[in-house]
Amino acid sequence: MTGFHDVGVAVIGTGFIGTVHLWALRRLGVRVTGMLGSSAGRGAERAAALGVHHAYNSLEQLLADPAVDVVHVTSPNHAHFAQVKAILTAGKHVICEKPLAMNSAESAEMVALAEASGLVAAVCYNTRFYPLSQQACGMVAAGKLGEVRLISGHYHQDWLAKPSDWNWRLETEEGGTLRSVADIGTHWVDLTSFIGGLKPVAVLAELATFIPERQRPLGPVETFAKTGDRASETRRIETDDAGLMLLRFANGARGSVTTSQVSHGRKNAMSWEVSGSQGSASWHSEHPDHLWLGHRDEPNQILQRDPGLMNGLGAAAASLPGGHVEGFADTFFALFRAVYSDVLAGGRSAGSNYASFEDGHYEMLFCDAVITSAKESRWVEVEGQE
Amino acid sequence: MTGFHDVGVAVIGTGFIGTVHLWALRRLGVRVTGMLGSSAGRGAERAAALGVHHAYNSLEQLLADPAVDVVHVTSPNHAHFAQVKAILTAGKHVICEKPLAMNSAESAEMVALAEASGLVAAVCYNTRFYPLSQQACGMVAAGKLGEVRLISGHYHQDWLAKPSDWNWRLETEEGGTLRSVADIGTHWVDLTSFIGGLKPVAVLAELATFIPERQRPLGPVETFAKTGDRASETRRIETDDAGLMLLRFANGARGSVTTSQVSHGRKNAMSWEVSGSQGSASWHSEHPDHLWLGHRDEPNQILQRDPGLMNGLGAAAASLPGGHVEGFADTFFALFRAVYSDVLAGGRSAGSNYASFEDGHYEMLFCDAVITSAKESRWVEVEGQE
Amino acid sequence: MTGFHDVGVAVIGTGFIGTVHLWALRRLGVRVTGMLGSSAGRGAERAAALGVHHAYNSLEQLLADPAVDVVHVTSPNHAHFAQVKAILTAGKHVICEKPLAMNSAESAEMVALAEASGLVAAVCYNTRFYPLSQQACGMVAAGKLGEVRLISGHYHQDWLAKPSDWNWRLETEEGGTLRSVADIGTHWVDLTSFIGGLKPVAVLAELATFIPERQRPLGPVETFAKTGDRASETRRIETDDAGLMLLRFANGARGSVTTSQVSHGRKNAMSWEVSGSQGSASWHSEHPDHLWLGHRDEPNQILQRDPGLMNGLGAAAASLPGGHVEGFADTFFALFRAVYSDVLAGGRSAGSNYASFEDGHYEMLFCDAVITSAKESRWVEVEGQE
Amino acid sequence: MTGFHDVGVAVIGTGFIGTVHLWALRRLGVRVTGMLGSSAGRGAERAAALGVHHAYNSLEQLLADPAVDVVHVTSPNHAHFAQVKAILTAGKHVICEKPLAMNSAESAEMVALAEASGLVAAVCYNTRFYPLSQQACGMVAAGKLGEVRLISGHYHQDWLAKPSDWNWRLETEEGGTLRSVADIGTHWVDLTSFIGGLKPVAVLAELATFIPERQRPLGPVETFAKTGDRASETRRIETDDAGLMLLRFANGARGSVTTSQVSHGRKNAMSWEVSGSQGSASWHSEHPDHLWLGHRDEPNQILQRDPGLMNGLGAAAASLPGGHVEGFADTFFALFRAVYSDVLAGGRSAGSNYASFEDGHYEMLFCDAVITSAKESRWVEVEGQE
Repeated sequence: MTGFHDVGVAVIGTGFIGTVHLWALRRLGVRVTGMLGSSAGRGAERAAALGVHHAYNSLEQLLADPAVDVVHVTSPNHAHFAQVKAILTAGKHVICEKPLAMNSAESAEMVALAEASGLVAAVCYNTRFYPLSQQACGMVAAGKLGEVRLISGHYHQDWLAKPSDWNWRLETEEGGTLRSVADIGTHWVDLTSFIGGLKPVAVLAELATFIPERQRPLGPVETFAKTGDRASETRRIETDDAGLMLLRFANGARGSVTTSQVSHGRKNAMSWEVSGSQGSASWHSEHPDHLWLGHRDEPNQILQRDPGLMNGLGAAAASLPGGHVEGFADTFFALFRAVYSDVLAGGRSAGSNYASFEDGHYEMLFCDAVITSAKESRWVEVEGQE
Repeated sequence: MTGFHDVGVAVIGTGFIGTVHLWALRRLGVRVTGMLGSSAGRGAERAAALGVHHAYNSLEQLLADPAVDVVHVTSPNHAHFAQVKAILTAGKHVICEKPLAMNSAESAEMVALAEASGLVAAVCYNTRFYPLSQQACGMVAAGKLGEVRLISGHYHQDWLAKPSDWNWRLETEEGGTLRSVADIGTHWVDLTSFIGGLKPVAVLAELATFIPERQRPLGPVETFAKTGDRASETRRIETDDAGLMLLRFANGARGSVTTSQVSHGRKNAMSWEVSGSQGSASWHSEHPDHLWLGHRDEPNQILQRDPGLMNGLGAAAASLPGGHVEGFADTFFALFRAVYSDVLAGGRSAGSNYASFEDGHYEMLFCDAVITSAKESRWVEVEGQE
Repeated sequence: MTGFHDVGVAVIGTGFIGTVHLWALRRLGVRVTGMLGSSAGRGAERAAALGVHHAYNSLEQLLADPAVDVVHVTSPNHAHFAQVKAILTAGKHVICEKPLAMNSAESAEMVALAEASGLVAAVCYNTRFYPLSQQACGMVAAGKLGEVRLISGHYHQDWLAKPSDWNWRLETEEGGTLRSVADIGTHWVDLTSFIGGLKPVAVLAELATFIPERQRPLGPVETFAKTGDRASETRRIETDDAGLMLLRFANGARGSVTTSQVSHGRKNAMSWEVSGSQGSASWHSEHPDHLWLGHRDEPNQILQRDPGLMNGLGAAAASLPGGHVEGFADTFFALFRAVYSDVLAGGRSAGSNYASFEDGHYEMLFCDAVITSAKESRWVEVEGQE
Repeated sequence: MTGFHDVGVAVIGTGFIGTVHLWALRRLGVRVTGMLGSSAGRGAERAAALGVHHAYNSLEQLLADPAVDVVHVTSPNHAHFAQVKAILTAGKHVICEKPLAMNSAESAEMVALAEASGLVAAVCYNTRFYPLSQQACGMVAAGKLGEVRLISGHYHQDWLAKPSDWNWRLETEEGGTLRSVADIGTHWVDLTSFIGGLKPVAVLAELATFIPERQRPLGPVETFAKTGDRASETRRIETDDAGLMLLRFANGARGSVTTSQVSHGRKNAMSWEVSGSQGSASWHSEHPDHLWLGHRDEPNQILQRDPGLMNGLGAAAASLPGGHVEGFADTFFALFRAVYSDVLAGGRSAGSNYASFEDGHYEMLFCDAVITSAKESRWVEVEGQE
């Protein structure tokens, strides 16, 4: 393989995020060999709608296709573990959506398998690939902010703000014990850990379920479908509408983040502020092309994403000149460009900074600590971070 | 007394905040009878500089002046307790800067004394009197946001970000155990409690001292004077550069706030977001004339301070038409206008919502709980809130 | 006179802007000797309401009061000429609201009279005294932006957006030929001329009356009173709802500004951007504590008003530390502080930069040129600027 | 052809914007048959770099390829005319970058040819396809803003702010008489005409060349290459660094826009405000996911791009849920999706609102009027708009 067009890629999952993957893969110029849906029929239908000429009937068929070099896993969370293991066993590179697995036992096994395989194994924490996330990461690494002291922020949404809102993630059996923390909180933790160059070693968590009963529509529900007028049944909800967490880091830094899926008016509002001994930086996902840089003794700065004004990491992740805003879809392009460079090289290179399976596993351990902390109202260490 | 110009007022304290009080009092049209400085000489000098014709030599002299109806207390925190007691005992109304006292034992006594006196006794939590704070309070009270669920935000500054920055508040003996939490955190708690209509019943606090050693200039230090080149001695610091707190409310709502005095580039950044079952609101002190209102199913709104667009509370606190920004100094005018209406009426009226001594006492109890929580790494209930 | 408290001041006009003057004068600590209303009765009533112990019955009485050193003129525009002449003739300093006069013949005479008198004579272009206006002025003067090239912006309001909105300014006979240009456009021209250090030498203007017929309420109308349900008569309107102007400066710079009083949602939105050969600056009146500084080869900056971060002019106009927003009312305080320093000194000092009568006269000449340009659809030179 | 994957597309031009086209075409799922570069060698090299398997040697070869249904023209402006004519003559659909031609004589001929052909012929005014541009267009069409009165704004950049900045557009012979107006001003005019539903009928223009001499590097220059240290020669420049224009519309509305390529710190800042009799709207290209909606008697709104909150036009152009920002690259995807739907249908459909050749021709006529107006300092009517 000498170029992206030599790389064959199959995508598992044909939903919203699978479509975003597909768009970025096509833009990148790799060869999409086919998609795999939740059923053969569903897969064929969606592939046709998306202009993909082939739909696999099964994972076995997909893995047996010698044209497939890389597999993207965008299936429901519970399927990740088995699919990823099969993919790696088949000797194919893998890019898996977050969360990596359903629990840390699974993810630990996946880390080991990935390591043994020597294959490229990435977790799709795409927000690292906003060019200004890379810029911030580079700035911290270069000491521009000094020693990191305080990392704070939030990730607030509103799509589950009403008792009539429904999604499979609401129920513990299907989505797991954690909801807002697992679904969006881990994005925040991954991003700020990436930027700050350090991961939380302990967490104090408070979880809140503000809507203890919701209406589950009867019959099958399409994602994003309006469910208000549907016949429904009342369901008791125990997953977290919101999470409030304090964090401790090995260097003495502290952190605070709130997650919420019930904050009216906040569509997808992820924000962080990193305060160091020499300066600060701050960013908001709904204005992703602007990075605030805070100074004590001179005016603050607004660094607009601009390859000519950014450091090496930032410029490498950018595709467009300054002022031509890059958005959510562009992060997948930048992430995949980085991953596929490693695919062409045959394995993860030293300078790569997309999320590895170790990173994905960390988030599972972090969630374990959150669950314990919330239950016992005390600080809990994240396993393996002592 | 039939109008503001009939009311005689003395101001204790001639520093920055005393000056802000003086400006607002003059603007209001009450009669400033004189000021009391830290010494007779200092008082006379500052009074002259500020264009005040009289300086009292002592508190006794001030209290003996029959022209004085109201006394403003802007002296250092440790003096509040004794001064306020003397003022109330002398039968004069009092407006005391925050914190009300050095500890909750003092403040409890002050509450009792104020109540017994029947006099107007206010604590100077001025941020309640940004007109949009009043607007938000009125909106929550009217149910516009539904049941309050989540209150989050921060109060970040940078004036103590460097080891060479010095202020008397840094040392426990002079400023007390808490610094960022007591100095700015209680402002945030008071404001959000006011808006949300509920006070935290329990707190989980984490305190951080990122700069354990600072340089204290030798000899007397003027506040705000640059101290970098002065001869200095190294001092061990134990007060909090930053505080991270989680909050529980009686109705099941949760809160999160971080305080910091070491966040480069944040000059005086106080921000809150209140999320309820029907809507959200958010505000930032550095853009105080704009209130964000969040909606799930229609566009969000930006309510600019405008008497014609606000509810009764908001309009009552406003002085200027929309688009003519009101700032920090205007809050003192609005606050004092409310307090002096009660002074003219002879006592606190039913509709008044400036901070009472009970409110000031609550903040002392909150700080007690923060200290215990931080020391013991556990949730602690705020006394008297069960 | 050795201090502000030695200066006696009378205020003509008891309406909104007269009140704002009064507030700032009191805050400053000068002695307000009395007010003069539109009638003796009205004056007495308003003085009482505002806590001013004295109301003059007539201008003659006011001018005969030896305690009066300075007079503020906030009466309707048509009265400025006669009042100011009488004031100067009486040997008293004067601060006159804009516009200085009804036409350039009047203002020319006033300039001559003021010059001959040697008295302090200021026009109340308050927006120069936002501290960041002063900062920008100082930056341009120091060459921080290089040669000024392009000055653009707008001044948009919405208080006359509906056919049922009424104000005396709408009718030519009462308010003059120009409305939006004279009322708010001249503020913009004065401010940007001040900052840029250059005045327009020629203008191309286009005027628009989008609402050719309005409903004038019958009977007297209080300013700001809702007039919707009042009995009314239809009136033909010929003054400008909006003005669009291109500007030429002597150094080859160009300018563009639009004025509007019918832009729904814009309460008092004055914005400017100055682009020079070395850098740019931009500011918006509804967020007056933040100044944008544009750079080609490094990140842009946001200079928050902060005495510690500003140049000499900026710091001199500021009253509060960074992060404590200064607003509209504060500009009058800063302006008057500058003017009264000159009053104490006996005359305008070399470094003073508040608007002089010459500046006020220029705006009248500018309006003359706008009228001619709009009528003849051509570029017109501003008299005296060749 | 039943789906996008059945459509064959060739791209002329392999530079920056050609790459953006390619990315969007791949994402859309059409079949890219090959690219045509400025030379056979250049084309082959760039095609390989971009992962396109084929490079045409010539336009003739490209047009002879029966697999090609649509051709994208992203070549230098002077080539558009001849290429587009050949493409239409060959019976292939065409999407041409702006400006459509070098002058209005050419563009008039292209309009006629396109009309006669019945083929899909689009001009690439991509900013119409920010979803909030579509939303605003739909709002105006539905009367949500009432009668349009005032359209104002700017398009400011800084990439030519320094005398050492060089680009072929600077010289009249290569880039034409107009620069900032033609290059970015026409974008603004097209977008606001689209949104407002009306085109300027007359213009008053002032052009400024602030940097009359620039340094042209010797030898070939790569676009965006730093040229500062290169050997260079001094060149006299006569094209416009900035343009200031006033506009008149048939319904009596007025407009104002400034264009600049020398505004330090403005990377690609396109902003518009449309004020109507019932409401206002405003948008800025550097925060494209937020639309400001102005109201007189209720709080203003910020409509975040969100398919669930937008009208039909807005939702149709969106790809992602609210809060997941769409940027510059996404507009090409949305535009091409609309164009290729018509390609599949065999011709432009009634509801299509991408820029037609008539729209592109209008911009040429507008530029003609600007040139005349600036030269003669007078209002000039745009041909064909009476």
